[in-house]
Amino acid sequence: MSKLRARRRKDRRPAPGAVPGTLMVPADAPKPVIRVMDFSPGHVSEKTLASAREVVEYLTDATSSVTWVDVQGLGEREVLEELAQIFRLHRLALADVVNVLQRPKVESYAEHLFVIARMAMLTPSGELSAEQLSLFLGRNFVLTFQETYGDCLDPVRERIRTGTGLVRGSGADYLAYAILDAITDQYFPVVEALGDRIENLEDQVLRSPTPQALRKVYELKRELLSVRRGIWPQRDAINALVRDESGLIGREVQVYLRDCYDHAVQIIDVTETLRELTTGLLDVYLSAVANRTNEVMKVLTVVTTVFIPLTFLAGVYGMNFDVMPELKWRYGYLAIWVVMAAIGAGLLVCFARRGWLRSQAFLEGKKDGEAKR
Amino acid sequence: MSKLRARRRKDRRPAPGAVPGTLMVPADAPKPVIRVMDFSPGHVSEKTLASAREVVEYLTDATSSVTWVDVQGLGEREVLEELAQIFRLHRLALADVVNVLQRPKVESYAEHLFVIARMAMLTPSGELSAEQLSLFLGRNFVLTFQETYGDCLDPVRERIRTGTGLVRGSGADYLAYAILDAITDQYFPVVEALGDRIENLEDQVLRSPTPQALRKVYELKRELLSVRRGIWPQRDAINALVRDESGLIGREVQVYLRDCYDHAVQIIDVTETLRELTTGLLDVYLSAVANRTNEVMKVLTVVTTVFIPLTFLAGVYGMNFDVMPELKWRYGYLAIWVVMAAIGAGLLVCFARRGWLRSQAFLEGKKDGEAKR
Amino acid sequence: MSKLRARRRKDRRPAPGAVPGTLMVPADAPKPVIRVMDFSPGHVSEKTLASAREVVEYLTDATSSVTWVDVQGLGEREVLEELAQIFRLHRLALADVVNVLQRPKVESYAEHLFVIARMAMLTPSGELSAEQLSLFLGRNFVLTFQETYGDCLDPVRERIRTGTGLVRGSGADYLAYAILDAITDQYFPVVEALGDRIENLEDQVLRSPTPQALRKVYELKRELLSVRRGIWPQRDAINALVRDESGLIGREVQVYLRDCYDHAVQIIDVTETLRELTTGLLDVYLSAVANRTNEVMKVLTVVTTVFIPLTFLAGVYGMNFDVMPELKWRYGYLAIWVVMAAIGAGLLVCFARRGWLRSQAFLEGKKDGEAKR
Amino acid sequence: MSKLRARRRKDRRPAPGAVPGTLMVPADAPKPVIRVMDFSPGHVSEKTLASAREVVEYLTDATSSVTWVDVQGLGEREVLEELAQIFRLHRLALADVVNVLQRPKVESYAEHLFVIARMAMLTPSGELSAEQLSLFLGRNFVLTFQETYGDCLDPVRERIRTGTGLVRGSGADYLAYAILDAITDQYFPVVEALGDRIENLEDQVLRSPTPQALRKVYELKRELLSVRRGIWPQRDAINALVRDESGLIGREVQVYLRDCYDHAVQIIDVTETLRELTTGLLDVYLSAVANRTNEVMKVLTVVTTVFIPLTFLAGVYGMNFDVMPELKWRYGYLAIWVVMAAIGAGLLVCFARRGWLRSQAFLEGKKDGEAKR
Amino acid sequence: MSKLRARRRKDRRPAPGAVPGTLMVPADAPKPVIRVMDFSPGHVSEKTLASAREVVEYLTDATSSVTWVDVQGLGEREVLEELAQIFRLHRLALADVVNVLQRPKVESYAEHLFVIARMAMLTPSGELSAEQLSLFLGRNFVLTFQETYGDCLDPVRERIRTGTGLVRGSGADYLAYAILDAITDQYFPVVEALGDRIENLEDQVLRSPTPQALRKVYELKRELLSVRRGIWPQRDAINALVRDESGLIGREVQVYLRDCYDHAVQIIDVTETLRELTTGLLDVYLSAVANRTNEVMKVLTVVTTVFIPLTFLAGVYGMNFDVMPELKWRYGYLAIWVVMAAIGAGLLVCFARRGWLRSQAFLEGKKDGEAKR
Repeated sequence: MSKLRARRRKDRRPAPGAVPGTLMVPADAPKPVIRVMDFSPGHVSEKTLASAREVVEYLTDATSSVTWVDVQGLGEREVLEELAQIFRLHRLALADVVNVLQRPKVESYAEHLFVIARMAMLTPSGELSAEQLSLFLGRNFVLTFQETYGDCLDPVRERIRTGTGLVRGSGADYLAYAILDAITDQYFPVVEALGDRIENLEDQVLRSPTPQALRKVYELKRELLSVRRGIWPQRDAINALVRDESGLIGREVQVYLRDCYDHAVQIIDVTETLRELTTGLLDVYLSAVANRTNEVMKVLTVVTTVFIPLTFLAGVYGMNFDVMPELKWRYGYLAIWVVMAAIGAGLLVCFARRGWLRSQAFLEGKKDGEAKR
Repeated sequence: MSKLRARRRKDRRPAPGAVPGTLMVPADAPKPVIRVMDFSPGHVSEKTLASAREVVEYLTDATSSVTWVDVQGLGEREVLEELAQIFRLHRLALADVVNVLQRPKVESYAEHLFVIARMAMLTPSGELSAEQLSLFLGRNFVLTFQETYGDCLDPVRERIRTGTGLVRGSGADYLAYAILDAITDQYFPVVEALGDRIENLEDQVLRSPTPQALRKVYELKRELLSVRRGIWPQRDAINALVRDESGLIGREVQVYLRDCYDHAVQIIDVTETLRELTTGLLDVYLSAVANRTNEVMKVLTVVTTVFIPLTFLAGVYGMNFDVMPELKWRYGYLAIWVVMAAIGAGLLVCFARRGWLRSQAFLEGKKDGEAKR
Repeated sequence: MSKLRARRRKDRRPAPGAVPGTLMVPADAPKPVIRVMDFSPGHVSEKTLASAREVVEYLTDATSSVTWVDVQGLGEREVLEELAQIFRLHRLALADVVNVLQRPKVESYAEHLFVIARMAMLTPSGELSAEQLSLFLGRNFVLTFQETYGDCLDPVRERIRTGTGLVRGSGADYLAYAILDAITDQYFPVVEALGDRIENLEDQVLRSPTPQALRKVYELKRELLSVRRGIWPQRDAINALVRDESGLIGREVQVYLRDCYDHAVQIIDVTETLRELTTGLLDVYLSAVANRTNEVMKVLTVVTTVFIPLTFLAGVYGMNFDVMPELKWRYGYLAIWVVMAAIGAGLLVCFARRGWLRSQAFLEGKKDGEAKR
Repeated sequence: MSKLRARRRKDRRPAPGAVPGTLMVPADAPKPVIRVMDFSPGHVSEKTLASAREVVEYLTDATSSVTWVDVQGLGEREVLEELAQIFRLHRLALADVVNVLQRPKVESYAEHLFVIARMAMLTPSGELSAEQLSLFLGRNFVLTFQETYGDCLDPVRERIRTGTGLVRGSGADYLAYAILDAITDQYFPVVEALGDRIENLEDQVLRSPTPQALRKVYELKRELLSVRRGIWPQRDAINALVRDESGLIGREVQVYLRDCYDHAVQIIDVTETLRELTTGLLDVYLSAVANRTNEVMKVLTVVTTVFIPLTFLAGVYGMNFDVMPELKWRYGYLAIWVVMAAIGAGLLVCFARRGWLRSQAFLEGKKDGEAKR
Repeated sequence: MSKLRARRRKDRRPAPGAVPGTLMVPADAPKPVIRVMDFSPGHVSEKTLASAREVVEYLTDATSSVTWVDVQGLGEREVLEELAQIFRLHRLALADVVNVLQRPKVESYAEHLFVIARMAMLTPSGELSAEQLSLFLGRNFVLTFQETYGDCLDPVRERIRTGTGLVRGSGADYLAYAILDAITDQYFPVVEALGDRIENLEDQVLRSPTPQALRKVYELKRELLSVRRGIWPQRDAINALVRDESGLIGREVQVYLRDCYDHAVQIIDVTETLRELTTGLLDVYLSAVANRTNEVMKVLTVVTTVFIPLTFLAGVYGMNFDVMPELKWRYGYLAIWVVMAAIGAGLLVCFARRGWLRSQAFLEGKKDGEAKR
């Protein structure tokens, strides 16, 4: 959630107290491009419309063809309002289309169902990005809105063009399902990528708990919360469609939607598991750091404890008292070395028995390679 | 929740065991100012009343105009009781109006609905402040009470004055909706400001986990709990209005209230996410501090471990034994320097292989600039 | 929950396997004092009864007066059993009256409702104490039992005596409500006192995280759990009364009980918030201690790291080698001071750039005053 | 959960994939002892049966007496199967009787109710032990099974023998209640003992957080989880009996079962509170250890910081430079003592102002006695 | 969840937007082997089929025999599609069979029930492995699919062959139950093995909290989450079968399924307890490490604090001032030894009173043996 995004978020939401249904169109939003796909089992035609008005002829045709009106870019209020008028969209629904920060949901209007879904995508650099898709499902049309150009629905378009699968031979409800299914399945690579990042972090956290790793764990947590905020209401929305009683969705398509619902539940399952693992990872991080500190402490303590008494002894025999008999002894110097060696060795044995010398810190430089799985 | 506020809180609540419905009016409360807006599609009139009694003429008029009676300041018990008598308010409802620490709720009375909502605002200094708005919705009037002068409803008043949107052409139910919608949407900038503070804190916590940062995280947690206590019951109250069956709220307005409900759910979503992030931030803080301590420890250990054996050696050759052959050697002094350099270098190599010299603590002074995102 | 209390707890509960309804009356329990208040809109009479038998005349009177039989002290089994016989109390209900560790609950019997509530009070020394009040609500009487003398119901008694409010003009149901309301509202000062203690602890924990503060946080947690165990079931009990269908509670009184229910919910809200804050405080405590340790470490590291190399150098020139050319130099001594000053200054600059000298530990003695809010 | 227990657990459960209802009887299980108590208001007879077959005569008698068949020890499959045939027990129910690791539950069969309960007991050494009691309630009999000899039901047997309470005058349903009530109430001393252990641990953890204390806290957590796993489903089972509609349980007994249900809820309440306290105790432990480390660090830092500069100074004047003017001064030695005293005193003052000298570590040896509550 | 598995996971799931019901068959998947068991009370026949087509004769036979078609290996799309055609399987069901990462679930189709279950197994090296079993239950057949050869169902096959238990004499519904029961019971040894690992880890964590132990705790957490993700939906699936109303499952078999459901609940119980213990173990680990650090610190502090003042003193009398009267004293050297001994002893007494010398660190080498339970 970059600062840029946060700024845009504020541009898009009407001020509190504004007239409900106010459309906030940022100046730099891309202009709407309206593409129409009209198809029936026997034909398919595709066209980019010059004006919203042209869409009418597709709707009034007496044939049973299905029309997908695909609007990308929300940058011109007049076009949106013209479409709203043609499709008789409710003012608040249109406002939800433009204010692209809605939760996924389903709303039932007299002549159509209004569905908001959230597309999750990974940018090439591995960041999570999300975009709202608003979908109106009528008797023989599907009308979709997105904020920017480009989406994850090209496979669906290709299926329409080539006539693969059932999409050409089915109604608008199946097309709506195909779009929602593609959007939902898009979460799988996202959560799998997050899962891979957790696995990488685990190793890193256990082997070298740096602040960078900490930042990554926290960012992972943030992104998982973000995925979760998208997929939970999406599941509820799909479930609402499975149980829909408006008559716009046929029995057979509801079987397909149930499958799509299963996918959403699976994604939630994985997300929740990853969330628990991330929380565990924070604890592991802290434990690993504490462990390292403990190891460092042991090194310090062993070295200090061994040498401090010896240094003291050396200091004693560096004193300048007139009468210090030991200094005169013939083997005094030798004796002091023997004594110091004995003390040092005794302390080392003592530490060794306590296991402090076998500790990782002492061995870590060498064993790092072996510790890898 | 300053001490001042806590004190005021106690002044306002009747002692346990007091007669139910007791009105506690603190001596320093602002005096009530009654403003009336009376409007229909064709006209609008606005007036500040000199006495509560004047309100009667607005209610008894035979026309279908809608009247908004807006009471700001609760400092005079007589005025409140006179209004209660005119509008036939229940004793307990009036007590809830005065004791401004109620949870948002909806209560249904014979002739009106009683709604309590909580306005969240950010003071210019960025602190969270909250105020209770009590609203009575009758057939053709809306009666609102607030504790202090000034609120976030000016955009609604302006819409009535200028006739923007549907408010002039709709009934009292739409006005009530417009007020609740303005109050609910007021939470958006509040949670966004809290979200910005979390983002700022993240960086601070990861880069320099000071006690000040800790205090800020904890205060954030406190404020989020406070927002949450306001918005959760508000959502329930709005939901109760959506499902209201008193007949005071029309079908079309319920569609609008559903939209308002969606906003409340969105705010709750964001609040819960922020709460989880704040909790995570406390863990991150602790980990970051532990990490810092670990780095400090490494510096201490490296320096101590390198110099203590050397100092010991120097001590040895500072001893005053009569017979210390090395002291006589020609190159004894040179030799000892060589030995000490070798020991020091050996230890440093050993630490370097362990990665302790590449640690952040050693580099941190220089790299701070680069670490910023 | 002192040990004393724990011991008494065990004295009061019958051994497992005992006959259900066994009355356990500890030898040192205060003897029952039976006080009767009999009132109607027009009169009020108050009397302390010599024997339980006297209560009958109040119940059999044909007038519509309401009788409050108030039993304080449970120390004589015969008295309790006589009362049980007169009021036809169920054996198990009577056992619940005597075993004063019940959860708040409502039970419906043929001729009366049986309510158990928990009074929370703060002792003058600020400790939390709780006491069970058992209440039987019949057609025209209220019978209450408490373990010890003295309670928080004096305001209610005063209202009966003086005829303030509605209590004199209403039935037994209103009296029962008035008692429960007084008990519920008694939680407000309790949770506010706990809230004040949390605020005080926050400052203390952040500024000097002593073991005493830790103990206080933990005790707070304990007391909050105790309050919570009292108020949650109390809310459920009140809710059961609001929905009661025994006919013993009138419509209007149910409106009042709904208000009482709102208060219970408010108290729960506050309690849960305090609980979350207390949990957060434990984390803050740990972080604050870790921070302190970090600061202490920095002091140690700076001092050690600066002086250890210097001491080493001094040691080197304290060696007694015959050939040590530097010792003969004219400005050798001056040179060594310059070198040592340079090393010391260099290290200090290095630490200053790392920010370790600006750390709180170094400034804390002076800044403590300013850090206060 | 000792290793022994774990091993026995595995012996008892049939291998996955075995025929459902397989009876696993370990070789070392105690042989079944069948005791019968037959009673009516007027008589009671008690007998230990030589063979399972003898039980038939008690069941076929035309009188309305109630028979309690009490089987202790499950070590002979033939006996169990004979009983199953006589009482027409379902194969799976019998398997549940033998595999003594079932969750408490109630199952309704055509002619009887099958109840599994879990007895919790404290061994004399204070460890928690649990045992399964399986109970079949028929029209005029109660059949119970336990794994080992001896249980907590002797008070119930005594009540039957002496005719105390209602048990002799009631039906088999009251007997079943009496057994379940005795088992449930047995949890009270268990959770109270655990509560006492927590209170003892609190003091220990705050005053001397040793590894032994940590182990105890963790074991407490383990035992609380174990109690919880027993009592939660037991509550549900009792609740199922309260609502039972098989007709085997009379109205009046259901009132008693409701009381038993209340007890189970109370035990759950206490268990959950103890669980929260134990979790808090783990946090407190960590904080207390961190605090101790902080105190130790302060001692180390004060001592080191005071003496290291002094040692350095002494080292300086131990150098052997030919030209060291201070060494020639008359009061040089005195002067260095003064300087060192000044430095030492200055550092101590500095530490005192920072409060490090008043810290617990410095006082702890003496204050330990006072810190006790 | 090895990397290998993760890679395979991606190979198996169709790309987002692909035609629903796309079968992804990895190139290296084992080829399907179709085995048929056909049995009735009187006969049993077993055969490995050469082609899917052969299965038809088993289904069309007029006798009432039950047929178990057991497909192991999913590596040939044509075979799967041929089977789907013969058994009239829904396209989406077949896709779920092949994409072996489904959650356990039950789906009802016109002619059969479709059940997905997850088999949990421990590899000989103690790792958790899981495999999906897809089961179709028709009027007189059970069709199962698994990804690889070998499973935990051999006991069931053996029971069919030998006619043990009820399986030969019952219908297809009992066979389906027997399979699900064997799969569910397979979780018992798995969670018991995990429980044993926790018990081992407890000791290790408390006695020597190494990073290896930390890794093991974290891996345990991961595996428990994995078990949990398998068993929770499995419980729901079995519950759905208990309540199934398709008529494919008889009354008596539902009683058996209820038993199987109880087992699933028991496994969940254990899993959740283990999860709580694992979480507690992470906290214990951190506390144990902190404790160790504290002990190490004490050693360091005692040694340093005792010797630093002594070394300072030795340094003082190593100074070369011309006038140092003490150096001339006859017993100066003796005196300084006495003084130093006094200081050292005094400090040791002081530490002993504080309990630092009795600390574990000092005794740990010897006591390790005794600390074992």
